[in-house]
Amino acid sequence: MTRTTVSHADGHIYEFTPGLEAAYTAADGESLTVETVDSLDGAIQENAARLETIPDEVNAATGPVAVAGATPGDVLRVDIEDVRVNEQRGRVVTVPRFGLLQDDPDIEHPSTYITPVDGDTIEFEGVSVPIRPVIGTIGVAPAADSYTTLTSHDHGGNLDTTDMTAGTTAYFPVFQEGAMLAMGDSKAAMADGEMCGTGVEIGTDIDVTVEVVSEPAVSLERPMVETETAWKTVASAETMEVAAKLANRDAIALLEDEYGWDATKAYMFSSLVGGLEISQVVDPLVTVRNAIPKPYLDDPFGVA
Amino acid sequence: MTRTTVSHADGHIYEFTPGLEAAYTAADGESLTVETVDSLDGAIQENAARLETIPDEVNAATGPVAVAGATPGDVLRVDIEDVRVNEQRGRVVTVPRFGLLQDDPDIEHPSTYITPVDGDTIEFEGVSVPIRPVIGTIGVAPAADSYTTLTSHDHGGNLDTTDMTAGTTAYFPVFQEGAMLAMGDSKAAMADGEMCGTGVEIGTDIDVTVEVVSEPAVSLERPMVETETAWKTVASAETMEVAAKLANRDAIALLEDEYGWDATKAYMFSSLVGGLEISQVVDPLVTVRNAIPKPYLDDPFGVA
Repeated sequence: MTRTTVSHADGHIYEFTPGLEAAYTAADGESLTVETVDSLDGAIQENAARLETIPDEVNAATGPVAVAGATPGDVLRVDIEDVRVNEQRGRVVTVPRFGLLQDDPDIEHPSTYITPVDGDTIEFEGVSVPIRPVIGTIGVAPAADSYTTLTSHDHGGNLDTTDMTAGTTAYFPVFQEGAMLAMGDSKAAMADGEMCGTGVEIGTDIDVTVEVVSEPAVSLERPMVETETAWKTVASAETMEVAAKLANRDAIALLEDEYGWDATKAYMFSSLVGGLEISQVVDPLVTVRNAIPKPYLDDPFGVA
Repeated sequence: MTRTTVSHADGHIYEFTPGLEAAYTAADGESLTVETVDSLDGAIQENAARLETIPDEVNAATGPVAVAGATPGDVLRVDIEDVRVNEQRGRVVTVPRFGLLQDDPDIEHPSTYITPVDGDTIEFEGVSVPIRPVIGTIGVAPAADSYTTLTSHDHGGNLDTTDMTAGTTAYFPVFQEGAMLAMGDSKAAMADGEMCGTGVEIGTDIDVTVEVVSEPAVSLERPMVETETAWKTVASAETMEVAAKLANRDAIALLEDEYGWDATKAYMFSSLVGGLEISQVVDPLVTVRNAIPKPYLDDPFGVA
């Protein structure tokens, strides 16, 4: 099958809503290239360009892509095969009333730093940093409420999770017919936490294959990501404590299912291997994940 | 120099106070073996033994060891050379009003699960888990206030940080003459987060070399740990958000010093590489670390 490209020009959203209209309809199992623009829609191209406030429309997500046959209760499997930066510069910004240290008097808000791309690296003030792309925003149409693309929740959205990168597989609950996958807000580099509020924001071309898992062996309430070494639950909430509880409870459910343990045994085991990881601490809801190393968990959806 | 052993019987504390009396005085650069008992002082040896409440005295820390020449303003460098379990079983417990999911009605509090040691693994309900020891509690005499060994703070204490293991180096501010190093509360295995409130609690023999860094190139307010791949600041606070702010601000200070950047540039760069990690979310104060990969930071204390 020819790989179709779905571009920002074909369609993009600033809000994940229950009633999204498809920009493209993919077959179950189809491979696509999704072109994304940087999270600031190209507005920041030099150090003098600064953001006094977070724009009302930010983090454009290309799509949505309907996946034929996806119905509520299914799981959407998104193999992320490659993420390539598609422009020659990225940008790091601070914005007033945004970011972990927004109240620190020694840190300038707003500020901008342009990071040129040089082959496989970006350059930050003379320091070369290898490009390790991250898809910042990726999600599906939510069940009932709507969420701007700046927010993360059970549908995914602005998860800012470093594991959303080439070689990993993302899983989302299907809440609406066609699932309605959209993604954008990529970074050429990002730390766990995304403390200043951004990574190196940059446009990307993302190769994915989308697949519907019908009647999954376990139900899914929130996103998950599968890396080379671990399965990770991903949860967003108003505080890191609450997000950690959700991510841990989801991991416990997977362990209960895998081993036939009660919740107490699974909770204890979750406290021994892998563990909690920070995705981002800066968006309206923060995101935490709970990793279970692969030796201890088979594919919970029965796909592999 | 012969390696001296400092045992639980030689001295142990349940509180880090400013006025600790040394159980042993080590020379600067001396190598020691520190013997520790499990965090529950041997009280839990079978599944039927349960804890209705956290004991008043828990997490015994062997020591304190005074290090000759350590004076306030110095940094104490602790090379952790080896951590060996010294008993044939560990234990995982839940305790009422303790742990991330203490309010979950499906999880039994209290409960106990004994984990036999089998060579290089422990066994949990038929699952073999490789032994990767963690020193749960490690710290020095604090500046002014006192902290039970159940609490983590700027002096260290109950950091429950998986990086406190063989092959890494811990750094502590010296607040009192001799520094007064104590450690215990080891685990044979522990997840980042230590969600149920414990890992596999177990006694250990810990080989360390202690060294005073006089006039360190940078001052240290809180613990740090150096792994094979990263320098990590370690901060404890009432919420993960506040702990993350402290750990990030400490990382920024190191980057400012390394590159001569202002705080804004250092903050931006901290948002690109390494990032925030969760140590534990269950103790009276929670602990978060901020990793800076080694390619981007030389030894901040000028030792290596």
